[in-house]
Amino acid sequence: MSDTVNIVRFHRFGDASVLQLDKLALPSPGPGEIRLRVKAIGLNRAEIMLREGKYVMDAGQLPSKLGLEASGIVDAVGEGVDSSWAGRVVSSMPTFPPDRYGVYGEVVILPVSAMSVYPERLSFEEGASIWAQYLTAWGGLIYFGGLRKGDYVLITAASSSTGLAAIQTVKAEGGISIAATRTAAKRQELLALGADHVIVTEEEDLVSRIMEVTGGKGARLIYDPIGGKSLESLVMSAATSATIIEYGLLAKEPTVLPLFTALVKYLTIKAYDVHEIFGLPKQLEAARQYVLRRLDDGSYTPHIAKTFRLAEIVEARRHMESNTQIGKIVVSV
Amino acid sequence: MSDTVNIVRFHRFGDASVLQLDKLALPSPGPGEIRLRVKAIGLNRAEIMLREGKYVMDAGQLPSKLGLEASGIVDAVGEGVDSSWAGRVVSSMPTFPPDRYGVYGEVVILPVSAMSVYPERLSFEEGASIWAQYLTAWGGLIYFGGLRKGDYVLITAASSSTGLAAIQTVKAEGGISIAATRTAAKRQELLALGADHVIVTEEEDLVSRIMEVTGGKGARLIYDPIGGKSLESLVMSAATSATIIEYGLLAKEPTVLPLFTALVKYLTIKAYDVHEIFGLPKQLEAARQYVLRRLDDGSYTPHIAKTFRLAEIVEARRHMESNTQIGKIVVSV
Repeated sequence: MSDTVNIVRFHRFGDASVLQLDKLALPSPGPGEIRLRVKAIGLNRAEIMLREGKYVMDAGQLPSKLGLEASGIVDAVGEGVDSSWAGRVVSSMPTFPPDRYGVYGEVVILPVSAMSVYPERLSFEEGASIWAQYLTAWGGLIYFGGLRKGDYVLITAASSSTGLAAIQTVKAEGGISIAATRTAAKRQELLALGADHVIVTEEEDLVSRIMEVTGGKGARLIYDPIGGKSLESLVMSAATSATIIEYGLLAKEPTVLPLFTALVKYLTIKAYDVHEIFGLPKQLEAARQYVLRRLDDGSYTPHIAKTFRLAEIVEARRHMESNTQIGKIVVSV
Repeated sequence: MSDTVNIVRFHRFGDASVLQLDKLALPSPGPGEIRLRVKAIGLNRAEIMLREGKYVMDAGQLPSKLGLEASGIVDAVGEGVDSSWAGRVVSSMPTFPPDRYGVYGEVVILPVSAMSVYPERLSFEEGASIWAQYLTAWGGLIYFGGLRKGDYVLITAASSSTGLAAIQTVKAEGGISIAATRTAAKRQELLALGADHVIVTEEEDLVSRIMEVTGGKGARLIYDPIGGKSLESLVMSAATSATIIEYGLLAKEPTVLPLFTALVKYLTIKAYDVHEIFGLPKQLEAARQYVLRRLDDGSYTPHIAKTFRLAEIVEARRHMESNTQIGKIVVSV
């Protein structure tokens, strides 16, 4: 291995174009850390905030690294880390402070607490597309949502990697998934990827289609990263005693809660961020074991929309942020 | 007993003035029903909707009876009802359809499923002031809110009967209650009635006072019947992973949910109506037993703001709807 490595950094805040490859000295893992020879990187929407200087924990120190999910091979371990980690194929769970570590690069340092093995049959690209989407689904749908067999689950922004992970989780648990997508372009692929029903919101009325599919009862669980004015139609789509998991805020306008209808239906609205699970060690380990089990039994298969090379990181991010893909954007290193 | 009895009814929808005393034939209990010689009636805000013709289940049949909570003595039982109910001192839980039964009157019919005994040391007036407020508190704070020892609990509209019941529940469970009230007029009495802290919202900034009282952590549980624009300050007052119980909608304006802050704090917003508990027989019985236990151990004492006579029902309702009282308005029969 060379004594310099390519690391993606940004020297000013902004859109994808601020990302650049910097040649840096080969880093060494500190106490509790490992060094990962990166094979693939999974891109996440959550990375936008840090890059744009809007991350809440820190105004941002420049230049900064970026990235949460990578797969690869451990080639060095720091003080206090079990030496059996060395040589293992692993990938990173996004449990670490995103302003302190970043995985966009050829060789990166990560806390060992964020690392997990994954089934050998998966490619490195698939290995880098596991933890954000499936841990988020476990926390939202199973831990907070109480997903049960027979539940109708409305999944908005269904073609995102998180949406597809939700579709697979609902199927694995014996529920019925209803995927909402804006345009007809993704309908067939969503059905092929396991959605039980697809609603094209630009062409169909969400609420009446939900009532049709659920026999007038409404959805028992709603998994939504959008918020804003769309919350009204989600409340209208909900069954009595339903839970609405709001796990993001893609909308720009204020979020209005139709409280009267929510009261009549006894709704729960959970503002959910997977970091809440990361703060609960027992639950995080239960989630990790669940995901490994679902990968083993074939219920979970990461769906890669497109792969790029590391030198194409700007293009890869742009493609991801265009929202035209179905599934995960991955960079092969 | 005379063969005619005075029953309060309304022959048109409207404000308190539509209520009148009608002389009706002594009613007989049907299957599953009992007849109650009423001694006291507890007034509830929930009764406004039916009287105004806005009750959601029914456009309203006129003339109509009204009222949810009464105490008294069972003087007849219908078919299928255990005869041991006869002669018992009981009061009604508001679990029945409010458009089918009404307790404002000298002698009324009620489903036996809604009746409960209560501790003998309580007056009839106190007996008519138990179930709505304490069952609501159990469902909101204990069942859905997960109230635990040491929790800071913000209680808005704290001088209502439901607010006082919440203060007593928080104290009984070892939490710390923070009562919010609009004007300074009720501060001393709220402290005397058991509130650990009182915030006068017209004079003090709610959020900064909450942060002061909780050492910067915020309230773990918030119990609010108002909604509307005030939800924003409740979200600002909440601790990480807090639950906000919205159990009413006194506000007229839309309810805006500050979703970004809610996501950062991992908040749960539960739109709660005690009827959800009424639909869960096991939970309702657990709640009833809990309330009886708290009445027995002295943690619960219904606080009567003022009593009226049955002939003063219009005045009693007007007083209740003026929001100047602290606690329950009761009519002695």
